[in-house]
Amino acid sequence: MYDLLKGLRVVEGSAFVAAPTCGLYLAQMGAEVIRFDNIGGGPDFRRWPLSAGGDSLYWEGLNKGKKSVAIDLASPGGRELAQRLAASPGEDGGLFVTNFPVDGFLSYEALRKLREDLICVRVMGWADGSQGMDYTINSALGLPLMTGPVDDDRPVNHVLAAWDLLTGAYCAFALVSALMARMKGKGGREIRAPLSDIGAATMANLGFTAETLLSGHQRPRMGNDIYGAFGRDLTTRDGQKLMLLAITPKQWSKALEALGIAAAVNEVEAELGVSFAADEGLRFTHRQRLYPLFERAFALRDAAELTPAFDAGGVTWGAYQTLEAALEDPRLFKDNPLFQDIRHPSGLSYPAPGAMATIPQDIRGAVRPAPRLGQHTDEVLAEVLHLSSGEIARLHDAKIVAGPEGR
Amino acid sequence: MYDLLKGLRVVEGSAFVAAPTCGLYLAQMGAEVIRFDNIGGGPDFRRWPLSAGGDSLYWEGLNKGKKSVAIDLASPGGRELAQRLAASPGEDGGLFVTNFPVDGFLSYEALRKLREDLICVRVMGWADGSQGMDYTINSALGLPLMTGPVDDDRPVNHVLAAWDLLTGAYCAFALVSALMARMKGKGGREIRAPLSDIGAATMANLGFTAETLLSGHQRPRMGNDIYGAFGRDLTTRDGQKLMLLAITPKQWSKALEALGIAAAVNEVEAELGVSFAADEGLRFTHRQRLYPLFERAFALRDAAELTPAFDAGGVTWGAYQTLEAALEDPRLFKDNPLFQDIRHPSGLSYPAPGAMATIPQDIRGAVRPAPRLGQHTDEVLAEVLHLSSGEIARLHDAKIVAGPEGR
Repeated sequence: MYDLLKGLRVVEGSAFVAAPTCGLYLAQMGAEVIRFDNIGGGPDFRRWPLSAGGDSLYWEGLNKGKKSVAIDLASPGGRELAQRLAASPGEDGGLFVTNFPVDGFLSYEALRKLREDLICVRVMGWADGSQGMDYTINSALGLPLMTGPVDDDRPVNHVLAAWDLLTGAYCAFALVSALMARMKGKGGREIRAPLSDIGAATMANLGFTAETLLSGHQRPRMGNDIYGAFGRDLTTRDGQKLMLLAITPKQWSKALEALGIAAAVNEVEAELGVSFAADEGLRFTHRQRLYPLFERAFALRDAAELTPAFDAGGVTWGAYQTLEAALEDPRLFKDNPLFQDIRHPSGLSYPAPGAMATIPQDIRGAVRPAPRLGQHTDEVLAEVLHLSSGEIARLHDAKIVAGPEGR
Repeated sequence: MYDLLKGLRVVEGSAFVAAPTCGLYLAQMGAEVIRFDNIGGGPDFRRWPLSAGGDSLYWEGLNKGKKSVAIDLASPGGRELAQRLAASPGEDGGLFVTNFPVDGFLSYEALRKLREDLICVRVMGWADGSQGMDYTINSALGLPLMTGPVDDDRPVNHVLAAWDLLTGAYCAFALVSALMARMKGKGGREIRAPLSDIGAATMANLGFTAETLLSGHQRPRMGNDIYGAFGRDLTTRDGQKLMLLAITPKQWSKALEALGIAAAVNEVEAELGVSFAADEGLRFTHRQRLYPLFERAFALRDAAELTPAFDAGGVTWGAYQTLEAALEDPRLFKDNPLFQDIRHPSGLSYPAPGAMATIPQDIRGAVRPAPRLGQHTDEVLAEVLHLSSGEIARLHDAKIVAGPEGR
């Protein structure tokens, strides 16, 4: 972890991916992040993948470096505690990240009564408050109909919950931005980040919506072809698939050079009266003329011959590899300094990453594991809410809070 | 736009998606964002989709609300100007977002000589500085081999540049976090955000890597089935595909109720001796037993009958709709207050979004269009670098800078 945000206290009442990644990013930049959950775990506490012992590898991946408080969120006393935590005191407190319903006991209106300058960042499904998750928002945006092989018309869902992830990072940005405004005397506020709006805005930011509005139809499904430039998967003589792309003139010339097909491409250019180097769009328009040249060049060589030549020639390419192979890839996982071998709450040890960015001049501190559920209940109640040990004991007796292992 | 970041001056030397979205998010929260490009445009200036007139809808989507400066970045004089802009003066200046090479004329070392407390956020491909773009990083991470129909083994690329988008939002978060540290006396720093590290860390955060390390194999391709719970696409009597999912017990019971299949599911539970409500993973393990019940229930009803029942019953579902249809969807685009109909540099008017989040208590200001290339060259040179009109004229004469339309 880094310490850019040291001193900040963020409380997270969350589940699934978006809000927990927001908290994760904040924690790995040095904020104290306190996640509260129902006693026994929230709706994501048993989310797959699981370890052989039944612990969620997902949960322990998404909650690294946080503190955990377990509260009975169905009880009035537990709800009051959660509200007080959300509105935690201190100059750099009063920062709450959540995906709880907009109009429930953790509504902004309810929390603001406890702290006037509260900052609340709320992940939502649909902007109107109705149920929506990454997959259902994604299906509504048209992308699964644009994804997958051209010879198949079935919708293809993404496997990576891209909207959740984008929302989580955007919420971390929004929270620190709101804190900066508060530091400048602008008070607190609620920031609502519905997946539906993040999705709609992104489709517009990338030009998808303007294209469809102006042309009257959405981009057709085109397999692995990169839209508007040159790029797709190609197969080597020994049957390996590589992703090759050329958007800039330099990427284009380097690819042709490494494959030895510059002359053949020149012939096509002469015949069509175009310059592919000068206009990436022409490479796309005439891609069916270009593909055979690339396919033939790939079919002449094994991957072991081609890929070093690509690297030496500065070609933009990537192997299609399995995650098993990726784990052996020194650049991704095996020798990646982001990763440290640590022991997780499941009891298992395996490599896990700290902050996703690198600050060359700062020391990359230890990667901290996720907490056990309820591990910090007593500590947080004492330090944040200033409860006495007697009060904390009474909360345990009343089963309003629990420590590790539900005790 | 909102004004949380009002007063910040961010300079962006960038292209494509990641760094420009970082600047976009900052601009839409109130920062002054100055993007510099080569005279005539950077490598993304003609990126598809294009308007009928040849303007990039992509470029004008990703650069909304920014100022534009056009500089000859191949000339020594132009490079010096770019460096001085990157290290812009002022308490809330010295904030630079870029995807220029780590060791080029915009290296941190070069810029730091101009401003000791510079904050530089640098998007990279691979962490070692080699060429990598969203599609080639994605292929290396294993996801395209996990995506798509089970009866097909071809890799399937994502259509949404998810790694670029996540990186852009994370960079916005990192920049504001670094500024907060600088405000607290911790000086400036470079933050490097390689797509390869963002990808590797995310695969770990979500549990993908631990699962593969511990089980020895990666998650198999499973079409549109949601991993570890219940969810997939289902087809109504009239042939419409809907995404239905149930991760929580509540989502599960509501889906069964709305479809009228609770009793049939009970029978399967009795036969197998399991409770699907209590354990989402069992719904996944036994999904081939459950799917026929859902398929039959869907086949009995048209979408027009089913979807209002789903909404009334609080079911988590989404239509697979085209982007054309999505544009008519009031919740996504048609009546979405994020969007305003504005005139863009292409000369075209169409709806475009402001900030992706909503702050109910603040006024959502006007959505600002992208600049024309070079539109703010003179203004920025005068106001940020304090050049005289004579100096600016000489830069134009020497073709080191250009205004709109390259003049």
